[in-house]
Amino acid sequence: MIEVCLVELKIPENIGFIARVMKNFGFEKLVLYNCNLGEEAYKTASHAADLLERAEKIRDLREYISKKELVVGTTGITGLKEERYLRRPIFYPDELREHLKGKHASTTILFGREDYGLSNEEIELCDMLVNIPTSPEYPVMNVSHSVAIILYELRKEAYKLEEKCYATSEEIDQLVSYFEELLRESRYPSHRLPRTLLMLKRVTKRALLTRNEYTTYLGVIRKIKIYLEELHNRLGKTR
Amino acid sequence: MIEVCLVELKIPENIGFIARVMKNFGFEKLVLYNCNLGEEAYKTASHAADLLERAEKIRDLREYISKKELVVGTTGITGLKEERYLRRPIFYPDELREHLKGKHASTTILFGREDYGLSNEEIELCDMLVNIPTSPEYPVMNVSHSVAIILYELRKEAYKLEEKCYATSEEIDQLVSYFEELLRESRYPSHRLPRTLLMLKRVTKRALLTRNEYTTYLGVIRKIKIYLEELHNRLGKTR
Repeated sequence: MIEVCLVELKIPENIGFIARVMKNFGFEKLVLYNCNLGEEAYKTASHAADLLERAEKIRDLREYISKKELVVGTTGITGLKEERYLRRPIFYPDELREHLKGKHASTTILFGREDYGLSNEEIELCDMLVNIPTSPEYPVMNVSHSVAIILYELRKEAYKLEEKCYATSEEIDQLVSYFEELLRESRYPSHRLPRTLLMLKRVTKRALLTRNEYTTYLGVIRKIKIYLEELHNRLGKTR
Repeated sequence: MIEVCLVELKIPENIGFIARVMKNFGFEKLVLYNCNLGEEAYKTASHAADLLERAEKIRDLREYISKKELVVGTTGITGLKEERYLRRPIFYPDELREHLKGKHASTTILFGREDYGLSNEEIELCDMLVNIPTSPEYPVMNVSHSVAIILYELRKEAYKLEEKCYATSEEIDQLVSYFEELLRESRYPSHRLPRTLLMLKRVTKRALLTRNEYTTYLGVIRKIKIYLEELHNRLGKTR
């Protein structure tokens, strides 16, 4: 199980936002170490107030962590001079996801203070360090945004609803041959047909049509062609 | 260029948080349609107040969008009955990243109201729809979190500092052979050596040592072995 542990957050709204985004991504357990869980947290938590109510408040971080199988720290700092070894190696959120994949180790992810993050002592307690790659011009993120991004990465595959199914080359060829019939029926200059059909094929393939879009597209071309044939027949009769 | 366009946001704090996370990921241009840009926005924007000051306020969304080469809408709703076709096909944030990769189309990403998102009319203006995969139990995200996740995906490769460089198999073999010498020197039972060395090799390979970690690890084993030899020599002299 993966849980989120907040270390000395001072702004209740951030704690609420974090509870909300945890629930958005199906995480259940929030651990609070010395956090300011004020009333305002329940407002920003919105429908995740239950996570705040069930949150475990701990008094001794070191002791709490010692029971865990994997302790992950988050840090915005990656290049401090003397203590740099403390914050290396750095893993990116997608690397953390790959590392945890299929494992069921009891894991805590620590997020630190709004202004200062995790202290060196706290970083030392961590087995892995995660950093979100940000612009060097302004790398300091709001803590609830950091949580959102890391939890999103961890669960991104779990909640994808459908693998999109694209039309195959064979089907696009079918579509293009219907286009060809339609164009012939419309007296399109035949010397321009080859290049036009190639263009149509390329554009349609490049767009990667889903099966739904393909079916509708095919219907469009067939409907026009059938109507054209009908008109030709009617004209033939009156002639 | 990729810009962020907010549609009728009512809570100034959200607008500020969005400006901040835009700057975190190196995005410059914020467009506001009918948004409540109050004083509080400047607080949550923190060091990204300049983005708020430079934000373009537009009056006609349809007209503004018509000048763009690609309009991306964001939606938390993917399964409405009648209007479902409006919100299909859905792309996930990583698919959007792949789609935009290497292209330089002028792109706007629309984010809608806190309570209601984008209207069907606005969704109809969009060329691509993006959805963040969330838990079905509580899929409604805070809008600034949605922005954070999508911008993170778009820029995740750009700001990664270093490709980690791992120790090779050959190097780990080297490490294990130093371990072997150390164990022999320590009178480790020789019939247990093969299985122990295999275990050491497996654990060390599985951990994927970085080059730094490898060098330090190698140094540790050598240092112990050298000291052991020294002790042996001293003992040999006294004997």
